[in-house]
Amino acid sequence: MIFGSDNWAGTAPEISEALMRHSNGLAVAYGDSDLDKSIEKRFNEIFETECLVYFVGTGTAANSLAIAATMKPGGIVLCHDEAHVLANEGSAPEFLSGGGRLSPVGGRNGKIEPDQLLKAINNYPPEFNHLGQATMVTITQSTEAGTVYSLEEITAISNIAKQSSIPLHMDGARFANGLVKLDCTPAEMTWKRGVDMVSFGATKNGCWCAEALVVFNPDLHSHFQFIRKRSGHLFSKTRFISAQFEGYFENELWLKLARHSNLMGEQLEKTIKNSNQVRLAWPSESNQVFFIADKTKAATWLDKGARFHPFPTPKGIEGEISKNEQIYRLVASFITQQNHIDELAAIISA
Amino acid sequence: MIFGSDNWAGTAPEISEALMRHSNGLAVAYGDSDLDKSIEKRFNEIFETECLVYFVGTGTAANSLAIAATMKPGGIVLCHDEAHVLANEGSAPEFLSGGGRLSPVGGRNGKIEPDQLLKAINNYPPEFNHLGQATMVTITQSTEAGTVYSLEEITAISNIAKQSSIPLHMDGARFANGLVKLDCTPAEMTWKRGVDMVSFGATKNGCWCAEALVVFNPDLHSHFQFIRKRSGHLFSKTRFISAQFEGYFENELWLKLARHSNLMGEQLEKTIKNSNQVRLAWPSESNQVFFIADKTKAATWLDKGARFHPFPTPKGIEGEISKNEQIYRLVASFITQQNHIDELAAIISA
Amino acid sequence: MIFGSDNWAGTAPEISEALMRHSNGLAVAYGDSDLDKSIEKRFNEIFETECLVYFVGTGTAANSLAIAATMKPGGIVLCHDEAHVLANEGSAPEFLSGGGRLSPVGGRNGKIEPDQLLKAINNYPPEFNHLGQATMVTITQSTEAGTVYSLEEITAISNIAKQSSIPLHMDGARFANGLVKLDCTPAEMTWKRGVDMVSFGATKNGCWCAEALVVFNPDLHSHFQFIRKRSGHLFSKTRFISAQFEGYFENELWLKLARHSNLMGEQLEKTIKNSNQVRLAWPSESNQVFFIADKTKAATWLDKGARFHPFPTPKGIEGEISKNEQIYRLVASFITQQNHIDELAAIISA
Amino acid sequence: MIFGSDNWAGTAPEISEALMRHSNGLAVAYGDSDLDKSIEKRFNEIFETECLVYFVGTGTAANSLAIAATMKPGGIVLCHDEAHVLANEGSAPEFLSGGGRLSPVGGRNGKIEPDQLLKAINNYPPEFNHLGQATMVTITQSTEAGTVYSLEEITAISNIAKQSSIPLHMDGARFANGLVKLDCTPAEMTWKRGVDMVSFGATKNGCWCAEALVVFNPDLHSHFQFIRKRSGHLFSKTRFISAQFEGYFENELWLKLARHSNLMGEQLEKTIKNSNQVRLAWPSESNQVFFIADKTKAATWLDKGARFHPFPTPKGIEGEISKNEQIYRLVASFITQQNHIDELAAIISA
Repeated sequence: MIFGSDNWAGTAPEISEALMRHSNGLAVAYGDSDLDKSIEKRFNEIFETECLVYFVGTGTAANSLAIAATMKPGGIVLCHDEAHVLANEGSAPEFLSGGGRLSPVGGRNGKIEPDQLLKAINNYPPEFNHLGQATMVTITQSTEAGTVYSLEEITAISNIAKQSSIPLHMDGARFANGLVKLDCTPAEMTWKRGVDMVSFGATKNGCWCAEALVVFNPDLHSHFQFIRKRSGHLFSKTRFISAQFEGYFENELWLKLARHSNLMGEQLEKTIKNSNQVRLAWPSESNQVFFIADKTKAATWLDKGARFHPFPTPKGIEGEISKNEQIYRLVASFITQQNHIDELAAIISA
Repeated sequence: MIFGSDNWAGTAPEISEALMRHSNGLAVAYGDSDLDKSIEKRFNEIFETECLVYFVGTGTAANSLAIAATMKPGGIVLCHDEAHVLANEGSAPEFLSGGGRLSPVGGRNGKIEPDQLLKAINNYPPEFNHLGQATMVTITQSTEAGTVYSLEEITAISNIAKQSSIPLHMDGARFANGLVKLDCTPAEMTWKRGVDMVSFGATKNGCWCAEALVVFNPDLHSHFQFIRKRSGHLFSKTRFISAQFEGYFENELWLKLARHSNLMGEQLEKTIKNSNQVRLAWPSESNQVFFIADKTKAATWLDKGARFHPFPTPKGIEGEISKNEQIYRLVASFITQQNHIDELAAIISA
Repeated sequence: MIFGSDNWAGTAPEISEALMRHSNGLAVAYGDSDLDKSIEKRFNEIFETECLVYFVGTGTAANSLAIAATMKPGGIVLCHDEAHVLANEGSAPEFLSGGGRLSPVGGRNGKIEPDQLLKAINNYPPEFNHLGQATMVTITQSTEAGTVYSLEEITAISNIAKQSSIPLHMDGARFANGLVKLDCTPAEMTWKRGVDMVSFGATKNGCWCAEALVVFNPDLHSHFQFIRKRSGHLFSKTRFISAQFEGYFENELWLKLARHSNLMGEQLEKTIKNSNQVRLAWPSESNQVFFIADKTKAATWLDKGARFHPFPTPKGIEGEISKNEQIYRLVASFITQQNHIDELAAIISA
Repeated sequence: MIFGSDNWAGTAPEISEALMRHSNGLAVAYGDSDLDKSIEKRFNEIFETECLVYFVGTGTAANSLAIAATMKPGGIVLCHDEAHVLANEGSAPEFLSGGGRLSPVGGRNGKIEPDQLLKAINNYPPEFNHLGQATMVTITQSTEAGTVYSLEEITAISNIAKQSSIPLHMDGARFANGLVKLDCTPAEMTWKRGVDMVSFGATKNGCWCAEALVVFNPDLHSHFQFIRKRSGHLFSKTRFISAQFEGYFENELWLKLARHSNLMGEQLEKTIKNSNQVRLAWPSESNQVFFIADKTKAATWLDKGARFHPFPTPKGIEGEISKNEQIYRLVASFITQQNHIDELAAIISA
């Protein structure tokens, strides 16, 4: 009954095996080993384009360094008001970008609303130093709210960013979950829609620490090697991140794991819908499910061993939740099994 | 014949096994798992004192965040002029400490000379904002020059730092190599000598990425959780760093590995001494050995498959090296074997 | 008809004379001259308490360095969502505090609403590094909306900040305008109400560049000399800031100037109320007056030589302004005269 | 007998008058007034080229923001080891550039030695992130040692910087003193020799706070408006900096003032040479003169009312100064008179 987060899961056996497979011997450090190079190439194949690939160890690092790579003095990053960079990363984006600012943009279900994005961008007229300059738009796929941007929605946001020559970043901490939901190729979900860089996360989907910043737009990669080094995020034995990715991509493991956690998400959603004790906060499209429950009841479920966390009420739906209620989040991972869900169902239906 | 660096080595089998052992199941993220807690406790036992333990993934992170934790506005960090923080970390200490400055202090054989330290500290009179304020002294054990501070030498430096109320940090990227050389306890080499915090490195000695900032002085730990988070260095599945340390400490693996690499260092030194083609730059006391060779000859050895790097000539011994010569560094690791050294010997004696 | 801002006004004659008076001769630089010391003492008298006084040249510097002085890693500064630090300082607070974050708090008429402040503070539970830690509450007196916090309102906010041990800062860019409105002593408006530090602005009220950070709470001043120096804000000939303050305080010039600009504010408000072309956005209490007008009409007034700026619609009153309308700001200064206002009245009544 | 620094002098009468002249009335704030524009144009005339001009209030700001404007991640600024940016600015260059590093280059008499510069640049091979990337060379004219780079010496340094595509900055805190010594045009001393930007200082030469960053290379000015704003260095009433420059340039006041202080420097040098109590440390070429004296004697002169400061012994001449001796600095300013020097002469000859 552990649904605290997908980062509570360990590593998939295939990932552990890949780590073991490469544990012996000597190899050039700091990203120049043969394995590192081959995995970078693998990313190029998967994305069907030439792209630059930079390995880091945490999603916060990937996002923050992407923001740093595009930062300018007085720079403003436009993100959804529930975005992980704003809500959960301890000001790392601001710190690692040397004092940039995140400016929240609204929109239902965890997605930036294009009209609101346009309005937000227009708040920062070029050359007006009293306010700052917009330097990046970032979207999260799948979102913090468990939803998934459609390809058309990505295009709409991309078009607005492009009109103002602002780079578009995708926080892909749960990239695979969004991808299998849309059932499209990585290229279709990213650069073909105008995404300039992706924080490609694998940790939440079965690795122990494997994240990559993937840069499609060659204008944006300048100095990234230095940006990563000066923030302490260049591993000496970086080949062990590569090893994880090797296992991750082999035999489409990553897609299988994501399909599984999404399926478990569907089952969780069914459980919520079937219960007369709770109600769904909004429809889920991936491995995260949000429900509304009476706080006292939720406390008793936690006492019985269920693990899940409260989630801040999104703007605009405050009226839908009464004073004694709270939104809670359930997250399925690659190791979630139907019996875990059945146990939860038993508790919240009792 | 690969002596490029000890971070070219993979992971010791016991470390890989520890990673495997903990790969399954679910556990609280971000450092609150049972395993994380037990390893923190293990550090307390090893250091025979209450200490705070913060896991990070790179040595640069451990050093830079230690510097950040003690930084003040206009802060100055006193380090040896060959120190890794100054010579090899891409300005991460400056960046991650929000603009602090490293100020080099001289001394032979990679060790800070106490008189020069005192003079350097006196360059920064308290309250004189035009120059800055000294906020940390950092020493490296074992040093970048392959030497090892004696306990008396640590005490001498510590006393000077203490007189000015400046915290003393030890960069222990090769902590174990220094420890087994001195044949003392971790406590004797650190807090009993006045060291306030240690970057306890395990990566170079057989882990894949396991570093810990160990803080003995409770006055210095404030806000470290935030410092680590805002720089992107808090891992979600941090228990896999803990798992590495579990394997590292079990059955004194870490001491065995360090003794081995030090022994291989001795053999390398013998090889250098026995060769009439090269000469020892200075005596080694750990797993790093430095020799002086004709550049043209060295190039031919590299062509034959040997791997080692040039090393900048330390201040004060420029006169000992002729124009056609260069200092080179050999590093032994836990997987170095006698036959690797024999192969090198054959080449440089040919 | 120039009502663009009070910082469009030059210097009051008495200030210029004070600058002239001290222009000759030699004096110790960097704040240690006799004049500097005597003006610091004058501040102590005016505030009827021992306080630390640091001169800087811009209000942005005073505010940002105050924020820097209380910043902690992952630090969050709570300010009104129209606050100058958030809306007009080009991310200087973030940059000069090394990556802190400003978190907006709502409230009508430019004032932080205590309940919303409490809620905002509670968003940052202590020791929870994923979100950050609240390090300062800042209020603006008089506010960006031309209103003035009553002493009771300051107390209410101060009590909430104190309960959480968060320092309270007052952005006093228009300190004098608020003070004469409340008709109280500087002490009553600040430290007696729990304000810990004030950005004491004189530039907008008749000086050319004279701002002082005044710190009442001795726990908060540490390292401020270094903070100012490392950001380039320590003047060598700082005595010329002191000279301005000498003229400013002499014969209560500062209060006279502020009373005048407030009076002109009242006259502007009357003009707005008397016009059937515009309506008051909200009641003014100082030298800033806000009105709502049809955009097309406003454009014709600007064509006729009037100078004023649009002002972003505050949250919560969007419904009061129709699509063709806009809020505009009028600012009176120490040199505004009745005939300027009469000219404006003639235009907007035509 | 006050020779502490040229920034101890007040303002030249013509500068004060210019401030008075512009003190009345209203003008657009933040650098867009007619006066601001006309002074920017005046800079273009004086430098005989199109250049961008940014006013700031302190020399530390001018230098640090120039460094920030050219900074890159892991950036290294090459400066003389006695440079003001390194020796006297409280780490402002590091802080305001977001964590850049200053790397000292040697050379006698306060001047960077070209061969040592080349060697220093070569320490930072392109794309090698462990060390950093050289982003600026900065020279000081006239130097901290009172000497003046010849045009040929500037060219030699410029050529080396250009070969590596590194921008060349001139710290002109005492620009006028260097200029009148060389008896050339501002253009000849700067962009015609390959200087890309100048911190044009007027404060030390008779203004109260007037500094300008002058950028000749249009590739380097990007974002400077934002860089200045985000560090709090944009004045609202910036026209009062412009007013100072108006007075400064009128009737070649600036050159007259500099010629006077240089002449007083010559007289100070004569005084030193004529005394048998002290000896010249090295020949002066501007308004700063350095002498070597017995510490005990110097203390008695200070007791008698003379004001001057000790100066750190430059590298390479330690052997010329005995243990009881110290180098001291004398600085003449625009208000220094012969009788002040005579008084000093009387004391040190007694």
